[in-house]
Amino acid sequence: MSNERGRLFILSAPSGTGKTTLARRLVQLVPNLSLSRSYTSRSIREGERDGVDYNYVTAERFLAMREAGGFLEWAEVFGRFYGTAVADTERRLAAGEDLVLVIDVQGAAKVRERGVPFVGIFVLPPSFEVLEARLRQRSRDPEEQIRCRLETARREIEALADYDYVVINDEVERAVDCLRAIVLAERARRDAMARKVEEIVRSFQ
Amino acid sequence: MSNERGRLFILSAPSGTGKTTLARRLVQLVPNLSLSRSYTSRSIREGERDGVDYNYVTAERFLAMREAGGFLEWAEVFGRFYGTAVADTERRLAAGEDLVLVIDVQGAAKVRERGVPFVGIFVLPPSFEVLEARLRQRSRDPEEQIRCRLETARREIEALADYDYVVINDEVERAVDCLRAIVLAERARRDAMARKVEEIVRSFQ
Repeated sequence: MSNERGRLFILSAPSGTGKTTLARRLVQLVPNLSLSRSYTSRSIREGERDGVDYNYVTAERFLAMREAGGFLEWAEVFGRFYGTAVADTERRLAAGEDLVLVIDVQGAAKVRERGVPFVGIFVLPPSFEVLEARLRQRSRDPEEQIRCRLETARREIEALADYDYVVINDEVERAVDCLRAIVLAERARRDAMARKVEEIVRSFQ
Repeated sequence: MSNERGRLFILSAPSGTGKTTLARRLVQLVPNLSLSRSYTSRSIREGERDGVDYNYVTAERFLAMREAGGFLEWAEVFGRFYGTAVADTERRLAAGEDLVLVIDVQGAAKVRERGVPFVGIFVLPPSFEVLEARLRQRSRDPEEQIRCRLETARREIEALADYDYVVINDEVERAVDCLRAIVLAERARRDAMARKVEEIVRSFQ
């Protein structure tokens, strides 16, 4: 593993855009890139594993961690808490691991406010109509909740201006290829290459 | 073809790094990306085609074009002229084509001075020793010329700090994949996506 500090990539997208699928495929494809694992106070579901899908904690423990400033960002969704631990993220980045954090635009705004540097990628559906169709097909949510998600999506895409890259999820493999390209390109930036460049330049002297 | 303006990518590297091979593979791989064709006053060689490898012109014609400010950048190498025509580049970029320009660090500096925006990629050999070995294996140049090329390489890598990306040509396919990633990522930048984003955002309103 490299001693160079890892990079943080934040992936945000309206609900129903397929960001989780993209992020999972991405980390399968790119070496030394992994998904950040969140803490949650919601109970574990069938098929999920503690320490794999989430770190499951009680609401009390979550609130104590939050109180202690232990979260890079956190959110409350339908009464359950979700958060990214500062300590976990810092340890993995310090070890040179690149991390993907899949969080909503409010979460990304909190990370930005803390001054933590990251590469922001906004995933868009090809159109509002496609998003609506996906939400209706995939979920068994009542009409009211679908409308609520679509309204949230409308608000969320206004935050797009704060992101570095935009990827349209029209076709999963194409979108994943584009995400992979962004990660590889960020790793090829001159400042990210500083250590390797220094070594090569030294061989010229 | 898109109506959006194309992007200019400049690839520079010390002689013997393999930049031309990389650039040729790259444009084969990436749609809507092509190599910029230079003008030269040197005579056409066996296997080359006018308007394909170069635009072959007389030295008089070259100097007249230069006099008229017709070159984005130009160079004289062993008494022969090489240059990139402003008009060709402008026409292709305006048509939405992305262009790769393979030029040395002085050429890139001239383009920079003219205020023409571009993405600069510096290709490095894995080490000085590898570059030296490549130059000796590939060329039948006299020792003196090889030494001269290596000295030039030493000077050229000092310009690396002016480039956006660094790609190490340790293995051709890996390096080409990295160049491809840079092109795709640049196309996914928020500002490069502005038109598509606008369309999608409109569907949300």
